[in-house]
Amino acid sequence: MSRPVVLISLESPHSFWRLSSEHERALSAAFPGIAFRRATEEAVPHQLADAHVYFGWRFAPSWLFAAPHLKWIASPAAGTDHLPVAEAHSVGVALTRSYGFHGTPMAEHAMGLVLGFSRGLFISQRVQRNRGWWKDDLAEEFFDLAGATMAIVGCGSVGRHLAQAARAFGMNVIGVRRTPPAASEGGITWVHTAAVHQAVSVADVVVNLLPATPATDRYFDHNLFSACKPRSLFLNLGRSATVDQSALLASLDTGHLRGAALDVFDPKPLPARHPLGLHPRVVLTPKSSVFCRAYMDEAVAFFADNLHRYLSGQPLNGLAEAPAIRSPLVGG
Amino acid sequence: MSRPVVLISLESPHSFWRLSSEHERALSAAFPGIAFRRATEEAVPHQLADAHVYFGWRFAPSWLFAAPHLKWIASPAAGTDHLPVAEAHSVGVALTRSYGFHGTPMAEHAMGLVLGFSRGLFISQRVQRNRGWWKDDLAEEFFDLAGATMAIVGCGSVGRHLAQAARAFGMNVIGVRRTPPAASEGGITWVHTAAVHQAVSVADVVVNLLPATPATDRYFDHNLFSACKPRSLFLNLGRSATVDQSALLASLDTGHLRGAALDVFDPKPLPARHPLGLHPRVVLTPKSSVFCRAYMDEAVAFFADNLHRYLSGQPLNGLAEAPAIRSPLVGG
Repeated sequence: MSRPVVLISLESPHSFWRLSSEHERALSAAFPGIAFRRATEEAVPHQLADAHVYFGWRFAPSWLFAAPHLKWIASPAAGTDHLPVAEAHSVGVALTRSYGFHGTPMAEHAMGLVLGFSRGLFISQRVQRNRGWWKDDLAEEFFDLAGATMAIVGCGSVGRHLAQAARAFGMNVIGVRRTPPAASEGGITWVHTAAVHQAVSVADVVVNLLPATPATDRYFDHNLFSACKPRSLFLNLGRSATVDQSALLASLDTGHLRGAALDVFDPKPLPARHPLGLHPRVVLTPKSSVFCRAYMDEAVAFFADNLHRYLSGQPLNGLAEAPAIRSPLVGG
Repeated sequence: MSRPVVLISLESPHSFWRLSSEHERALSAAFPGIAFRRATEEAVPHQLADAHVYFGWRFAPSWLFAAPHLKWIASPAAGTDHLPVAEAHSVGVALTRSYGFHGTPMAEHAMGLVLGFSRGLFISQRVQRNRGWWKDDLAEEFFDLAGATMAIVGCGSVGRHLAQAARAFGMNVIGVRRTPPAASEGGITWVHTAAVHQAVSVADVVVNLLPATPATDRYFDHNLFSACKPRSLFLNLGRSATVDQSALLASLDTGHLRGAALDVFDPKPLPARHPLGLHPRVVLTPKSSVFCRAYMDEAVAFFADNLHRYLSGQPLNGLAEAPAIRSPLVGG
């Protein structure tokens, strides 16, 4: 019997999102019974003919027709909304996402954005060129993190990492989730999604980590923004489709929201002179919250662990759920 | 015998640095045997005649001549470089600073500045108006805090708070101090001031918390900046006199330093078009790192504890040292 074939396509303009030859050597050494092959994205459809496992960033639905032996599609990404979950499901191919390591960079990113507002750092950077002194402005604007409350909507693996960082600064954390743990866990006050309006009404900082699913489309709408505590700060590090951007802009313009930091927005990039790009109380980052120099080390380790499971017949970690609910993170 | 008199002058344009009437009532209730009096700064010299204790932001050296019964000057500030330490010492008046609560806001401020650089947030804020997409720039620039090293020069009470926050993000922390604790403490690798060059040579982030003393004047000079690890980040949340600003600018311009964040600089405010204000890799804040909504609550609690000590003949906390060495924080 021939060796199982794992086809890998992990290309990126950024080194930390590419498979290195060290990673490839480590995989081959750890799995001597597996034939690892690498393909550029263009070559994937041609090389899928005898592959049993695919490990890569992208998978076009049509590629399934060229993969008669494929059993498992493994993605190094946290989300599966850009992957053919329904199609793979319908032909009996497993599809897994990765988790457990996005939380580290995303917690750094989110806390940096929160502190940039709370300590007046974004204001300072903007005015330091033009103004002699701006201490009085900051004295009005700043707020203490110690004793303040953060609500994390869609509080899964990433949210737990973020909660830990927020608690290190003395913040209280409310975790909003479809399936909240029964007891207090991780120092988080857990509430069910049904109570999201109450949660955001007491939070000084609201962090949206919802995945994109039919159920979360424009989840943050005029109604939910209106329920937010006056002068609160809104962060979106999840998916842009979960936020009604017009409602967000309206809440910023009335002053109801203190500010917003968005790692995701629509369209991407924004057109020139888009109101979100120009807004003085909005900070945008280019979907860089998951930037991490150790990303591929972690993704390969997650994949290797899952490959052991695959070979020994154990259930895979990170299996994408049925199409209507695409991610275990859904709905918090 | 008449009641001891405590004269209080705690004025500020900012409410969080003013004594409230609630604070005053609480002090009177806690110390029924004390006569508390309040004075505007202008009125202080006239009201010092029968005061035994003074609690205030400012104390002019000449006021000592108007205070024949004065035994103790208590400051709510962390530093004593703006207070007449030598003069009070020479006439046998005790002078105390406050400590233990500046660390909370300063750790928030410092971590916000570090993350603003490490996550590319300052770059993002600057370019979001003018550029379509800047993901590639950030992919080059960012660095992970997890696994990185922070050196804290002048690592006292504030430094320990900051170390705790940095360690929550998985950073390694080196504490540089004139009097390092014997053993590892607080998860910090302690080194003596004599080894400061080695400490900064392995640090991705260097935080200067030195007080202003004759021994720390221009402590960060060309020599010490040159010893810093290439592409490291420099923060000054201590005193401007401890940094040679020309040497700092030179290290930024050669690219040896990745960037700098300064809460203190000289002169204050900077003149228009000063190279530090204009520098694209410098972020300035207007001595706002100690901004804290709970500041006066904490300062009054510290003073009340010391007042109990004073009345019962116990040694005071925060006593300023002999003139040549003005602060217990000195030299790390």
